[in-house]
Amino acid sequence: MTTSSLPKTPAEARALIRSGAWSTHTAGLVPGAVQANVVILPADLAYDFLLFCQRNPKPCPVLEVTDRGSPEPKLTAPGADLRTDVPRYRVYQHGELIEECTDISHWWRDDLVAFLLGCSFTFDTLLLDAGVPVRHVQCGCNVPMYRTNWPCHPAGIFAGPLVVSLRMIPGPLVARAVAVTARFPNVHGAPIHIGDPAALGIADLSRPDWGDPPVMEPGDVPVFWACGVTPQAVALAARPSLMITHAPGHMFITDLRVEEIASW
Amino acid sequence: MTTSSLPKTPAEARALIRSGAWSTHTAGLVPGAVQANVVILPADLAYDFLLFCQRNPKPCPVLEVTDRGSPEPKLTAPGADLRTDVPRYRVYQHGELIEECTDISHWWRDDLVAFLLGCSFTFDTLLLDAGVPVRHVQCGCNVPMYRTNWPCHPAGIFAGPLVVSLRMIPGPLVARAVAVTARFPNVHGAPIHIGDPAALGIADLSRPDWGDPPVMEPGDVPVFWACGVTPQAVALAARPSLMITHAPGHMFITDLRVEEIASW
Repeated sequence: MTTSSLPKTPAEARALIRSGAWSTHTAGLVPGAVQANVVILPADLAYDFLLFCQRNPKPCPVLEVTDRGSPEPKLTAPGADLRTDVPRYRVYQHGELIEECTDISHWWRDDLVAFLLGCSFTFDTLLLDAGVPVRHVQCGCNVPMYRTNWPCHPAGIFAGPLVVSLRMIPGPLVARAVAVTARFPNVHGAPIHIGDPAALGIADLSRPDWGDPPVMEPGDVPVFWACGVTPQAVALAARPSLMITHAPGHMFITDLRVEEIASW
Repeated sequence: MTTSSLPKTPAEARALIRSGAWSTHTAGLVPGAVQANVVILPADLAYDFLLFCQRNPKPCPVLEVTDRGSPEPKLTAPGADLRTDVPRYRVYQHGELIEECTDISHWWRDDLVAFLLGCSFTFDTLLLDAGVPVRHVQCGCNVPMYRTNWPCHPAGIFAGPLVVSLRMIPGPLVARAVAVTARFPNVHGAPIHIGDPAALGIADLSRPDWGDPPVMEPGDVPVFWACGVTPQAVALAARPSLMITHAPGHMFITDLRVEEIASW
């Protein structure tokens, strides 16, 4: 796909994805549009999952929850279809990955509920725009993510540790990184910890649990944000009869503009 | 009660309320503590109500939802008991007020869920501290509240119009009022409308639907905030088999400090 044919609006991007012409990751697709993590669960687990998100808003910022049985996110992307408009899905039964696919129409049921959760793809752009280097973007890597020893507040069957993402940031720019991200609680907001990884129970930064090892420059300070992998990991650990998510990096693109979800 | 014997901490205030020695309103009680609206519903309605709050966060900022059957808000006031620690309750069956009381132990059931929602008592203090006059506080009146013609986003059986509170603010201080309140999305955040009441479908500011008529000074601008009466009105309109709330102005006092719930 050439740059000139890149979709210019969220609706164009979703149409391209729906047609099957775009099935790769969505980083950088439709700059300025809010991208979302997707978690689809049976309705009988929806209350506990929503409560888990309410109790743990930093890792689990809820952008929208669809009506039972409806694949349409009416508030954040009216007309979209969550059965077809994500480039790649993962289907789990009882916690086991059983299929990766680009269309889940054959899995849809009238008791399913879809959760759209904020994604930090959104704020890497904000950091870069503010002059804060984001090392994993600059080197074309994935962000390093770590399981911490901080327990989330449990809700029903959902429980587990907080997962964080790490960005190494030059000391003089840490305050700017805090200020920039604090405006966006719906995409994880301000950092949850700055400094010593041991405070989070992380023994070795060079060995992340997900993503690539961090690139560090002299004078960098480790800055940790709550990560959207948390709710997925927690949901998976609960071994629901059925759970469908986006494949990592293959997000749903909403109609929301980043500046629309600023808290001020 | 003399000033010297006023409770100094949220726990002291709750103990006083629990003992029956304090059954009046809580305005000004334990300055700096976050006060909460209380809505108690049967568990079979809890998901729809939580979803309604998620879809309408400005009128319905959720501070905590208790576990099914538990009257203890473990996160915001551990050790407290929501059956006894609110100065005055209202009990509704099928939308009809059937009792006002200071203890709901005889109504408690193991399928009840309590919602604590942010209350704007908290931010009137912030406005005053920032030098913004709050006319209803200064004249010892209740804040004027209005039903608007803006529909909330419905969820399940819960639907209805947004209710707003009004503060008349001198033109040069409106921006400061926005800046001060925007930091606190959990107590309704920034205003939802500034200026012409007709834009909200309000025909006559002098005739509020709840509270007292506004006091207006020359040069004042009408500033409207989403109001915590919204979820109560919406819940009542759904005529649940049982619903218990605080009596107006008789709030639950959490252990949270106002500055702890600032979004930045």
